[in-house]
Amino acid sequence: MMKNVDLILTNAHVLTMDNDLNQYVVGAVAIQGEKIIAVGSDTEIHREYSSSNLIDCHGKILMPGLVNAHTHVPMTLLRGLADDLRLDVWLLGYMMPVEREFVSPEFVRLGTKIACAEMLRSGITTFADMYYFEDDVAHATAEVGMRALCSESILKFPTPDAHSYEESLAYSREFIKKWKDHPLIVPSVAPHAPYTCTEDILRQSAALAAEFDVPLHTHLAETLVEVENMRQEQGMPVVPYVKKQSLFDAKVLAAHCVHIDEGEMRTLLHAKAGVAHNPSSNLKLASGFAPVKKMIDLGLNVGIGTDGPASNNDLDMFEEVRLASFIAKGSSGDPTAIPAQTALLMATRIGAQALHMGHITGSIEPGKRADIILVDVSPLHNSPQFHRDPNRAYAQLVYAAKSTDVTDVLVNGKWLYRDRKLLTINEEELLHHSQDYARRIDIFLIKREQSVISKLIAIGGATEAESFEVQAKVPIENRNKILAKINDENLTILRKRHYREYDIYFLFDDPSQGRLRYREDHFIDENGEVSQVRSRLTHIGSAAERQFPQKVILSRSRFLAPATQSLRFYKEYFKPEKTLEIEKDRLRFLISFNETEFFINLDEFINPEMGSFLEVKSNTWSLTDAEHKSKLVTQLLEFLGASPEETTWNDYAEMVLDH
Amino acid sequence: MMKNVDLILTNAHVLTMDNDLNQYVVGAVAIQGEKIIAVGSDTEIHREYSSSNLIDCHGKILMPGLVNAHTHVPMTLLRGLADDLRLDVWLLGYMMPVEREFVSPEFVRLGTKIACAEMLRSGITTFADMYYFEDDVAHATAEVGMRALCSESILKFPTPDAHSYEESLAYSREFIKKWKDHPLIVPSVAPHAPYTCTEDILRQSAALAAEFDVPLHTHLAETLVEVENMRQEQGMPVVPYVKKQSLFDAKVLAAHCVHIDEGEMRTLLHAKAGVAHNPSSNLKLASGFAPVKKMIDLGLNVGIGTDGPASNNDLDMFEEVRLASFIAKGSSGDPTAIPAQTALLMATRIGAQALHMGHITGSIEPGKRADIILVDVSPLHNSPQFHRDPNRAYAQLVYAAKSTDVTDVLVNGKWLYRDRKLLTINEEELLHHSQDYARRIDIFLIKREQSVISKLIAIGGATEAESFEVQAKVPIENRNKILAKINDENLTILRKRHYREYDIYFLFDDPSQGRLRYREDHFIDENGEVSQVRSRLTHIGSAAERQFPQKVILSRSRFLAPATQSLRFYKEYFKPEKTLEIEKDRLRFLISFNETEFFINLDEFINPEMGSFLEVKSNTWSLTDAEHKSKLVTQLLEFLGASPEETTWNDYAEMVLDH
Repeated sequence: MMKNVDLILTNAHVLTMDNDLNQYVVGAVAIQGEKIIAVGSDTEIHREYSSSNLIDCHGKILMPGLVNAHTHVPMTLLRGLADDLRLDVWLLGYMMPVEREFVSPEFVRLGTKIACAEMLRSGITTFADMYYFEDDVAHATAEVGMRALCSESILKFPTPDAHSYEESLAYSREFIKKWKDHPLIVPSVAPHAPYTCTEDILRQSAALAAEFDVPLHTHLAETLVEVENMRQEQGMPVVPYVKKQSLFDAKVLAAHCVHIDEGEMRTLLHAKAGVAHNPSSNLKLASGFAPVKKMIDLGLNVGIGTDGPASNNDLDMFEEVRLASFIAKGSSGDPTAIPAQTALLMATRIGAQALHMGHITGSIEPGKRADIILVDVSPLHNSPQFHRDPNRAYAQLVYAAKSTDVTDVLVNGKWLYRDRKLLTINEEELLHHSQDYARRIDIFLIKREQSVISKLIAIGGATEAESFEVQAKVPIENRNKILAKINDENLTILRKRHYREYDIYFLFDDPSQGRLRYREDHFIDENGEVSQVRSRLTHIGSAAERQFPQKVILSRSRFLAPATQSLRFYKEYFKPEKTLEIEKDRLRFLISFNETEFFINLDEFINPEMGSFLEVKSNTWSLTDAEHKSKLVTQLLEFLGASPEETTWNDYAEMVLDH
Repeated sequence: MMKNVDLILTNAHVLTMDNDLNQYVVGAVAIQGEKIIAVGSDTEIHREYSSSNLIDCHGKILMPGLVNAHTHVPMTLLRGLADDLRLDVWLLGYMMPVEREFVSPEFVRLGTKIACAEMLRSGITTFADMYYFEDDVAHATAEVGMRALCSESILKFPTPDAHSYEESLAYSREFIKKWKDHPLIVPSVAPHAPYTCTEDILRQSAALAAEFDVPLHTHLAETLVEVENMRQEQGMPVVPYVKKQSLFDAKVLAAHCVHIDEGEMRTLLHAKAGVAHNPSSNLKLASGFAPVKKMIDLGLNVGIGTDGPASNNDLDMFEEVRLASFIAKGSSGDPTAIPAQTALLMATRIGAQALHMGHITGSIEPGKRADIILVDVSPLHNSPQFHRDPNRAYAQLVYAAKSTDVTDVLVNGKWLYRDRKLLTINEEELLHHSQDYARRIDIFLIKREQSVISKLIAIGGATEAESFEVQAKVPIENRNKILAKINDENLTILRKRHYREYDIYFLFDDPSQGRLRYREDHFIDENGEVSQVRSRLTHIGSAAERQFPQKVILSRSRFLAPATQSLRFYKEYFKPEKTLEIEKDRLRFLISFNETEFFINLDEFINPEMGSFLEVKSNTWSLTDAEHKSKLVTQLLEFLGASPEETTWNDYAEMVLDH
């Protein structure tokens, strides 16, 4: 009895990429609905199945769609924005400011669709994304009809879609609930990286992923600096640290893993974590050479990813697969490392396994979804065709073929790309809208190019401070009364310092530029001698501040940098319209009050003569924590004998200007 | 007065790649005959020039054609033949045997045309080739209409087009004379590499190139092994060694230079040598990371090459340019290394300078030949278009664009590729013929796959011995009479050894398989004790031997390998039809006779008992030298008191078989 099916692809050179690497040189695949129901030689399939929808593949290669194991698809809209820069300048100076300004649900949907168009053209059927407004990424992807692991990013910094990480976690929960049973989308949560997350973020993300049994997507050990900092701060490398935060309670997909040792590999293996190797990005950003051969030899599921199109700058998996093989050979000195068939496995079955989607896609096997591509290897750059070596088809695809040789793409049993035509995407429209964004981003950056913050970042070393600074300031009669209270047994003094502080504020006519403070702290020891001098630059943004009751201020957007150049250099470099000098004597305490740490500054103005002030401050990455601390601040002020009613909104520069 | 010209390309984004990196966002180029006569903004050009042949470029990028600085174009016919192998297995086991069998003028012309088709499609207008039958490479290239530096290879081994290097040198001289003034072809000579050439080859090649003022093309310091061997044998690295051989008397183009130090770079700079960097090949063959950033910083002309399509496996310069930038960043840890515009300069103007053709091509400047390509950057994978940064066009071409974005190619003022159609190449015909070669090579290799020589190479360590072995063998009464002569003052004994030699010959029914000899030498010291045992395998080819008068034999094709496995292993591995054992006592002398070195063997058979023999032998890479030595052999035999008339054709194995 012949079985009638929805679709038969016949007369193809089938590379199943299954466990035995079965090939059918004249092969066929039978498809029913979303699924593959049979694969074999043409004769075998035609003996058992028939279909009114019989498609002759004319000897093309038929293989599983490629799996792009790590990317940030909406960043197609930022492709080519800034290249050949230092990583910090690129990230802090360009990507993050532009993202803060432009990333929106509309931006994300448009960028995703452009990426889908490009990925389908390069034979990708499944990708693992990590970005903001991930619900919109998922929507756009499902509309196109592609398969994706969609991961909502969580960082300790404010992001384009959240003012605090608590908001991101709440968003992620809703997002996962909504998409959990979708036929194309696997939702997940993405604590961005150990160095951009707090321990709390890592723990809560893992718990959330475990609760819904969805993957957790993150960046691990991408750069040497990350690992060195981790060792210094935590006394251990990155993988043990995240293990300590219970990250492996979830099914982890770890992007990069460039700087991990064999012990860390074994931890990942034991945790059944997948790895996404990103050769172009690792090279372009000079991150290093991932130990791919070793990871594969150990049995880790290592997929291949393009990373985001802002750091690649394309989504071409053919290029990526070739590079994965090339770099493994080049960096190990072994020309037999990661041979063609291994590289292609990493881009198909093993890649799907790395995404924890190996049961759904990644090979041509009965029961898996029909995610299939056709590749025309007849063009001249693939010639000639040798037949002696059974591996030659893999070598041809990996070392000679181009993404433009892909002619057809089927996802979940539906054609999305047929005879080199995209069936579910209107490219003209996308190009038009993307050009509109490019124009607006150009204008934004040209205007900003002269800005203080970009110039600060351009000279390097600037780092963003904690998102939230809770602070209150009260004028006081003199410092001694407060000092007595500080020495009260109900406060624990953790650290104490005395210094003369010289602040030079650079002021600009355009208030949106914020203010820059060049500050020298001359530390004074017990004998009243200056023991040490520290200089630094602080940029205080013009960003909106939130005010809690009792004039407790919550400020955002501060960049710090060590001032390694002279004051003269900075004056010439930043060209402020006006400068303002303040000199004061400061007693600074780090204290613990109700089990919470605060800084207390007792400031006495020397120039101009404006009396004394008490400042209470605390920094945090968490909005909840900030709210909690704002209440404590009022209590602390009362404890110290200051009246919360007298707190002032103004900072010192404003007070002096008003003076 | 408007000047009328042959062709104006208008409405293009012109990247001149000249010294100041001038760009004309709406630009034009005026062309007269073979040459560019003006470049500028559209308005400027239209003010001064008119043409009945005015072509609107619709905003495409117009730039100099790319320069492929090092390749072996006919090897398109060997693309995908063998991949993911150790270098020695790949080269000795596959490339060289297939080349010996198949490379002919017809093969070379076909392979060149296929390469030209692929290179035109990827925007290449000029390439530097190195192969055999270079006259045919030049013919095919000129027929297509491309520009090339064509270099005839010279090796100490016999090659597909020469039995000896003297023949290759003579061929090169005729070749250079013939093509010297061609408008497209620059002929040159290519001593293949220091380790495949004798000092004599290097010196004579340099003298030949200098005589005709043409470039000299070679491979330098490609692998670490090459450099280590050079240090061991010559006490210096590769560049000083070739300098000592006067190589820099010629205008050198040095491919690879992966393992050179700063001193060597300065030597190359001082010698005005060009360097060809081959990123794909260096990665795929695991040769190492060339110090490209350092070379460029020092001011060396470093071009970018694809290397041959058997080790790449494509001729895609877009991929190569991107990789050159990526690898420089990745291997130096500096993401600003080799930025996009530098990489593109290396592939255009600097590349042309590396080929010593900088006065002819490589940039869009008045007076240079009209070698121009158009690139369509409108496809989605290049979007969006930012305009803020003047370098964005370079970044877009290097990091996002694909070779398939090239739409038109003009060489020497003539269109070779127009609207993605090749105008001077019939692709169908080429594909058909190439497939015929692939079929024949498949058959050859399948048959040979079981051959002794390939199996010997497959287990590794085999090296080809000197091409020519001059030898004569005479039966003698006893060894003492000859020994007395050897101790005569007219011979200088350079070395003396005494050993018991156990030979086991593996014999095969198919005479074309040759014979394999497993040999153990038990060295005997002055006390008659065995002091050391050495085992090795020698494959003695079935290749035709040449015989000089007096039965002096000139043999070829011998492979040597240390026998690191047991005799049992080799018997099972090679499965000989028959084995033959011989045991003899040998006194071996290295002597100098008439200022020429010879080995003298005094052999006494132990098993089977066949008496004593005198053997005289000498090895050489040079045919002229072999002829000279064959005469000396006869004199030496007479000097030793043996009668040249009694020499025998047979080797010991044949003698025993006849016994």
